[in-house]
Amino acid sequence: MRTDGRNPSDLRPFAVTLHPNKYAEGSVLIEMGDTKVLCTATVDEKVPPFLKGQGKGWVTAEYAMLPRATQTRNQRESIKGKQVGRTMEIQRLIGRALRSVVSLEALGERTITLDCDVLQADGGTRTTSITGAFIALALAIHKLSAHTNFAKYPLTDYLASVSVGSLQGQTLLDLNYAEDSKAKVDMNVVMTGAGAFVEVQGTGEEAPFTRSELDEMLALAETGIARLIALQRETLGEAGARIGTAKV
Amino acid sequence: MRTDGRNPSDLRPFAVTLHPNKYAEGSVLIEMGDTKVLCTATVDEKVPPFLKGQGKGWVTAEYAMLPRATQTRNQRESIKGKQVGRTMEIQRLIGRALRSVVSLEALGERTITLDCDVLQADGGTRTTSITGAFIALALAIHKLSAHTNFAKYPLTDYLASVSVGSLQGQTLLDLNYAEDSKAKVDMNVVMTGAGAFVEVQGTGEEAPFTRSELDEMLALAETGIARLIALQRETLGEAGARIGTAKV
Amino acid sequence: MRTDGRNPSDLRPFAVTLHPNKYAEGSVLIEMGDTKVLCTATVDEKVPPFLKGQGKGWVTAEYAMLPRATQTRNQRESIKGKQVGRTMEIQRLIGRALRSVVSLEALGERTITLDCDVLQADGGTRTTSITGAFIALALAIHKLSAHTNFAKYPLTDYLASVSVGSLQGQTLLDLNYAEDSKAKVDMNVVMTGAGAFVEVQGTGEEAPFTRSELDEMLALAETGIARLIALQRETLGEAGARIGTAKV
Amino acid sequence: MRTDGRNPSDLRPFAVTLHPNKYAEGSVLIEMGDTKVLCTATVDEKVPPFLKGQGKGWVTAEYAMLPRATQTRNQRESIKGKQVGRTMEIQRLIGRALRSVVSLEALGERTITLDCDVLQADGGTRTTSITGAFIALALAIHKLSAHTNFAKYPLTDYLASVSVGSLQGQTLLDLNYAEDSKAKVDMNVVMTGAGAFVEVQGTGEEAPFTRSELDEMLALAETGIARLIALQRETLGEAGARIGTAKV
Amino acid sequence: MRTDGRNPSDLRPFAVTLHPNKYAEGSVLIEMGDTKVLCTATVDEKVPPFLKGQGKGWVTAEYAMLPRATQTRNQRESIKGKQVGRTMEIQRLIGRALRSVVSLEALGERTITLDCDVLQADGGTRTTSITGAFIALALAIHKLSAHTNFAKYPLTDYLASVSVGSLQGQTLLDLNYAEDSKAKVDMNVVMTGAGAFVEVQGTGEEAPFTRSELDEMLALAETGIARLIALQRETLGEAGARIGTAKV
Amino acid sequence: MRTDGRNPSDLRPFAVTLHPNKYAEGSVLIEMGDTKVLCTATVDEKVPPFLKGQGKGWVTAEYAMLPRATQTRNQRESIKGKQVGRTMEIQRLIGRALRSVVSLEALGERTITLDCDVLQADGGTRTTSITGAFIALALAIHKLSAHTNFAKYPLTDYLASVSVGSLQGQTLLDLNYAEDSKAKVDMNVVMTGAGAFVEVQGTGEEAPFTRSELDEMLALAETGIARLIALQRETLGEAGARIGTAKV
Repeated sequence: MRTDGRNPSDLRPFAVTLHPNKYAEGSVLIEMGDTKVLCTATVDEKVPPFLKGQGKGWVTAEYAMLPRATQTRNQRESIKGKQVGRTMEIQRLIGRALRSVVSLEALGERTITLDCDVLQADGGTRTTSITGAFIALALAIHKLSAHTNFAKYPLTDYLASVSVGSLQGQTLLDLNYAEDSKAKVDMNVVMTGAGAFVEVQGTGEEAPFTRSELDEMLALAETGIARLIALQRETLGEAGARIGTAKV
Repeated sequence: MRTDGRNPSDLRPFAVTLHPNKYAEGSVLIEMGDTKVLCTATVDEKVPPFLKGQGKGWVTAEYAMLPRATQTRNQRESIKGKQVGRTMEIQRLIGRALRSVVSLEALGERTITLDCDVLQADGGTRTTSITGAFIALALAIHKLSAHTNFAKYPLTDYLASVSVGSLQGQTLLDLNYAEDSKAKVDMNVVMTGAGAFVEVQGTGEEAPFTRSELDEMLALAETGIARLIALQRETLGEAGARIGTAKV
Repeated sequence: MRTDGRNPSDLRPFAVTLHPNKYAEGSVLIEMGDTKVLCTATVDEKVPPFLKGQGKGWVTAEYAMLPRATQTRNQRESIKGKQVGRTMEIQRLIGRALRSVVSLEALGERTITLDCDVLQADGGTRTTSITGAFIALALAIHKLSAHTNFAKYPLTDYLASVSVGSLQGQTLLDLNYAEDSKAKVDMNVVMTGAGAFVEVQGTGEEAPFTRSELDEMLALAETGIARLIALQRETLGEAGARIGTAKV
Repeated sequence: MRTDGRNPSDLRPFAVTLHPNKYAEGSVLIEMGDTKVLCTATVDEKVPPFLKGQGKGWVTAEYAMLPRATQTRNQRESIKGKQVGRTMEIQRLIGRALRSVVSLEALGERTITLDCDVLQADGGTRTTSITGAFIALALAIHKLSAHTNFAKYPLTDYLASVSVGSLQGQTLLDLNYAEDSKAKVDMNVVMTGAGAFVEVQGTGEEAPFTRSELDEMLALAETGIARLIALQRETLGEAGARIGTAKV
Repeated sequence: MRTDGRNPSDLRPFAVTLHPNKYAEGSVLIEMGDTKVLCTATVDEKVPPFLKGQGKGWVTAEYAMLPRATQTRNQRESIKGKQVGRTMEIQRLIGRALRSVVSLEALGERTITLDCDVLQADGGTRTTSITGAFIALALAIHKLSAHTNFAKYPLTDYLASVSVGSLQGQTLLDLNYAEDSKAKVDMNVVMTGAGAFVEVQGTGEEAPFTRSELDEMLALAETGIARLIALQRETLGEAGARIGTAKV
Repeated sequence: MRTDGRNPSDLRPFAVTLHPNKYAEGSVLIEMGDTKVLCTATVDEKVPPFLKGQGKGWVTAEYAMLPRATQTRNQRESIKGKQVGRTMEIQRLIGRALRSVVSLEALGERTITLDCDVLQADGGTRTTSITGAFIALALAIHKLSAHTNFAKYPLTDYLASVSVGSLQGQTLLDLNYAEDSKAKVDMNVVMTGAGAFVEVQGTGEEAPFTRSELDEMLALAETGIARLIALQRETLGEAGARIGTAKV
């Protein structure tokens, strides 16, 4: 039994509020336990310079934490004068992961920017950001599709992410902060609705891990992501109906 | 009648969610119509260098808007590499206003930082931040008082703020964004529970204003702030009982 | 009697040196007592991106203090790597105030930048900058008018600024640094030649102020600004003859 | 057959020059094919603030590429004014990986900084940096051990890294730049001399990958790293004799 | 005859206003023709970290130009976010030159900072800054000597600087901007009252120069500097009486 | 006899490795004793904005030291967030010196950037950079000439640089770090193959120097540079055959 009463293979309570923002083309407030992330999708009818004139779109992400999202207050990055390494690493990951299920050709010459702002952090902010940003992205593309004649629907599959870890000999799903800070191994996995891997990032700073530990973590992540994608499907309902239709 | 159906002297719907953040010493989500600001108070048991060893505390504020708080997306200040002039001006105002009702001597050698993060903006974000930050500050000081033996209660009065403006010959209270962008004069007023002025900032960029227009705006602001302070009293309840007791 | 021998409603000695800079389109060295500000106006035959193609001009300002303008040396902002909040707040105020008496349509597609560099500071640097920058702006527009066929003269009125404050029960005009640092309330007022208000900024950080104190300060500011505008008229002479002619 | 004539499971030619720098406590020039990285280890007899007084040491890394390390010239990060996201991500990885084989307690209150400067880049610069930085670190610790009485030898194991990828249906070891830029999946693996995993980072931006593809890549990485560690052992000779002796 | 009517070996009109700043420990407004530099000396009773506890002082300089010191307006370095290369090069030169005539031991543990702010530039701003900064430094040290018991007077000699150049076959002294921008060779020379060289910086970007041209320029600089030092002596009067007394 | 066994007028051992970088249009690793600098030349078929459309090219340089090029580790400038004054001063010098032997008209509308990265520093890094950068530049222009029909060869002469100094009454050529840090006078000289001066920079921070000391240093520099240019000729061989042919 874990400190919050979960079994090793339990996700934390999952909650989604759709459209918390009246301006964004897509928005969602996602909660995994006490981790709360506000994700907004902004559609811009142009592309970055490196893509100009290629008939392709772009999907990118930015990530930040409010100063008091954590137990002790963090200095704002605007005051530091730059984004720190951890922020850049996370937002690069979110953008890369989302692009793996977007046909940039089908999207056409427009950019969708996903802003993931962590209102409260209790572990798993990057995986929760990916799971939430996918929903905001799906809402924005669904809204776009109302007045855009997509020959092919730009979203090729569902996408979600979860953390797994190894702590005191147990393999745990969806670590909270207390677990994460004591874990020997910490792994973030991103997968598609079809069950394929998009990102696998495992780190054994405290102690290296064996191949069989790795296999166990991957298997547990797989079950967690399948459940998250089922929740995404339910949440999106009609707005997700055309996802993946263009694939094959 | 205003576009949102209000009379000239009406405030927008006011809503407060207490304790939206589980880590902060005080926190509040304040809504004035569609303007939503998350305010957290962080207590730090030390003071900035310029106050060391003087037996006095400090109260300061930081302000930011999420990128998609507005109709079109704004670039993050962490990416610009600095806070812009408007941000600095607003956070200096919030901190200065709050300090006017705090006895820094009574507070003792500690710093309280108020973070005002605008989740959605529809006009009046600086005045809403002040009104909300006061509540978060009051919650934090009330919590502090449980385990600190304050000889004198550090909060000397209530404090709230509202905007007033002049638009097409009418003096309006609590402008929303549509009104604010068309107003000839825009004024932000901060007052105490005792009805004294803390800040008066009136700007007539579109057109200069007369003394009688100024008097009318001040009078309207006065009524609006009195109502906001009544709402603060109700919201804080017991947590506000000792505010102002040390004064006189 | 004040420490420098003035009565409460006296301005400090006012001195203006015209054309101290041989390159600028307009320039003035303004002195209010020991506060000395060098103001230059630069005319640029283009406008910022947000105004392109609209047939309108722009007026903007920048403000800085030399490192040893003050009693103790201040670090240069070029070494800090950015302008501090106070600087941004002041230069935004100067630009906004000046624009209130400029018809940007009449000016046409050009930008005038006012640089206000404080050589020596003894209180009231922002109000002195506004009063001096107006003169430099008037000189530049007068010079422009020699070879530009303005259908309508771009300057619609005179403009000046002064500080007032409340100190030990007295309302004082044009505070020097010693007075300013002890004042309970500090107010900066900007008005036009026609006697209308452009900016009113009152701050009661030390103590809130009542409506009647506010009224007294506004009345005193009004008399001071009227005197400053009379001095501007005299200083500009012919160069100011067309100011306000286009209004009505 | 690959474009450079290698079989899918071949490493590129591996070359090491020991002590290319006369000042550093440890230094190595490592070459994997045309990728050349200069790694220096600097020993500093103090620790960062967050570790002060804990009797523990620290190992950290910095990474950079010379402007013309690549086919087209890159702007210097000193001119950009900051390290880019990719740089931060890589140097965080190098430091984290090295720390997994260092007993910080055994090292004592000192910091070792590994600088990995890429003189020429042809794919695999982060994995080559890890493999080379380990050698520089081992040399520095061996040198330290000559005049430091280590109760326990601070290096607990060997460590090396390699990339694997999936390209046109083939699983390839140690990708060069041409292969890397066309690969469907790109994976970086870091392992210890004992054959345990320290980091596994797989990215399928072009296309998601299956569990069996993942397994194949991991197996290939394992054989490559075993060969690299054998080369490290040979290179270090006596200087590596005590590595891992304290473990058990 | 030069465009401004001077002979090749003439200096431009030299004017000095002492004590233009009421706060600085020493200050001077120096004019060489239309080049005007405000120099202030600030005495600080502490030294930079690298000198702590050595019983020695420090002399350093900062240089800047007001935005409209030149024919076209320059962007402020505070807005660029950094000092440009030219600024750094010049202020390093000024500081280094001044230190050559200061006994840092005699000065004791204090820092004197010379701020050289160019109000108007017409060539020779760096040499004029050195000549003026020396006077401000001398005033500050003279003032210090009134209440400091210097065993040895910290200023060991006079110091001045001038530019020389080669233009259309002529060797010219003290170039103005028009001459400087057409000169084939441009040389800045700093010398002491005793006639020794402190800095010689000659640059032949337009065309290399011969040894005999170099000799001619050095000789001309020598005569110019001798005249400048005579003017400094006269200007300082009593305040310069102890300069160089400690030498020998 | 000097500490490294040289006579006062000896250069340090000179070594050059051509083409150490497979991507650059010209590259050289130059060693003067223990000072090692990697110089690469990058040819870009466009010019900076200030030269557009003038039919002229540009040559510029950047300089940096690896963190552990020196006895103690230096913080990276990318982490400081800017290039320091010394770096800017040196790279401005290198670029200016190289341009003195390039006909920008003959080069045509292209930019050549010389990157000088110091791998190991033992005094004389700026002079060694100039001598090495010239070779890289010559290689790049020779390579360009293979497919560009230069009416006039863009390199008008050879160019090299050396340091000289005055230490304990002796005039020394090509100072190493130990000598440089004790020298009373330090002078850097840049000259052409024809024996003309391009830059002369002498600094007497420790003590001013006389005209005869200056003459002695210049004479010694002249002999050193002549030897360096002979070595450059030999190194370049055929690649240098057309240098200077267009002059006369």
